Amino acid sequence: MTETAQVVTGHQHGYTPEKAAYLRRLRLIEGQARGIARMVEEDAYCIDVLTQISAVTSALKAVSLGLLGDHLAHCVADATRAGGPEAEEKIDEAMAAIKRLVK
Amino acid sequence: MTETAQVVTGHQHGYTPEKAAYLRRLRLIEGQARGIARMVEEDAYCIDVLTQISAVTSALKAVSLGLLGDHLAHCVADATRAGGPEAEEKIDEAMAAIKRLVK
Amino acid sequence: MTETAQVVTGHQHGYTPEKAAYLRRLRLIEGQARGIARMVEEDAYCIDVLTQISAVTSALKAVSLGLLGDHLAHCVADATRAGGPEAEEKIDEAMAAIKRLVK
Amino acid sequence: MTETAQVVTGHQHGYTPEKAAYLRRLRLIEGQARGIARMVEEDAYCIDVLTQISAVTSALKAVSLGLLGDHLAHCVADATRAGGPEAEEKIDEAMAAIKRLVK
Repeated sequence: MTETAQVVTGHQHGYTPEKAAYLRRLRLIEGQARGIARMVEEDAYCIDVLTQISAVTSALKAVSLGLLGDHLAHCVADATRAGGPEAEEKIDEAMAAIKRLVK
Repeated sequence: MTETAQVVTGHQHGYTPEKAAYLRRLRLIEGQARGIARMVEEDAYCIDVLTQISAVTSALKAVSLGLLGDHLAHCVADATRAGGPEAEEKIDEAMAAIKRLVK
Repeated sequence: MTETAQVVTGHQHGYTPEKAAYLRRLRLIEGQARGIARMVEEDAYCIDVLTQISAVTSALKAVSLGLLGDHLAHCVADATRAGGPEAEEKIDEAMAAIKRLVK
Repeated sequence: MTETAQVVTGHQHGYTPEKAAYLRRLRLIEGQARGIARMVEEDAYCIDVLTQISAVTSALKAVSLGLLGDHLAHCVADATRAGGPEAEEKIDEAMAAIKRLVK
């Protein structure tokens, strides 16, 4: 789906303006995950595999924090300004995501 | 490289007996990472993307802990029994990996 | 400082309504920290000390998540409704706290 | 209990040679925990409380990693050299502690 199509279908999210950058980072992460499988396949040293897994985990954490920041600054802030029960729901939902992230 | 080749070349590691299981788990993780990129491409809701990233992070953490356990029970234990400076080096190296994991 | 004094001085925060409960939890944590020092003093088994440290860390994490949730639902939400540059600053500040929490 | 008493009673652990240093660090942590309770009592700003909690959590993590390193280098290594089922138990026990630490 192209960015144009996305605009047409109107699914605007906090991360939409940075979508292309997030996609690049996620594809790098996918490549790193594939690289880890290849390391195990080729009998790489355990510690080297662990180092690569830590690198992927850090990259995923950075993407999560980026998405969360965009979400708070856009989706949650919009709901807060609109008011009503949805505002509270959005904050509870964000907190549940933060708890999963912190775990 | 096939499992046979691996035995022939003799690169035995702590995870070797479980190599096929680790490969299956890592390929699942690679597929999950690809799925997250697709979610962003298709403008999925931020919180749903975060939930999937948390799932991949948990799966990677479980693989890391598995590899680390195998490493301590085999590579580090072997070095400890052999004694000498290499025993201490192996423990320092394992501790450095644990620090990266805990970070 | 009593709760009355706090109302008089008017330092209202997201956690104010739950202040007494947070204080109880933090005093329990302080007691647990003192207990860990005593364990080391009395030469407790390393693993038992580690277990207690993990318990304190979990308790601190739970307090942090509680405070953060209150902060998002009150301070950040109020700033968002008021609008202006302070709204954005509050979100950036909260994100910095979340990053420290996730690290 | 004094260090002398500890030598007499013979409870030697991986951390024994560094016991005084660990005690100092744990008492600092206890003081920091008391400081956090005081901050809440005096209605400190939520984010400042969160920052202090993160500092305590980091300090506890550093103590845990230190104790774990000493444990692997002494208790686990000794059990490994002695061999038998206790060696494996010690590694399983250390891995369980690492899992709690990583969580």
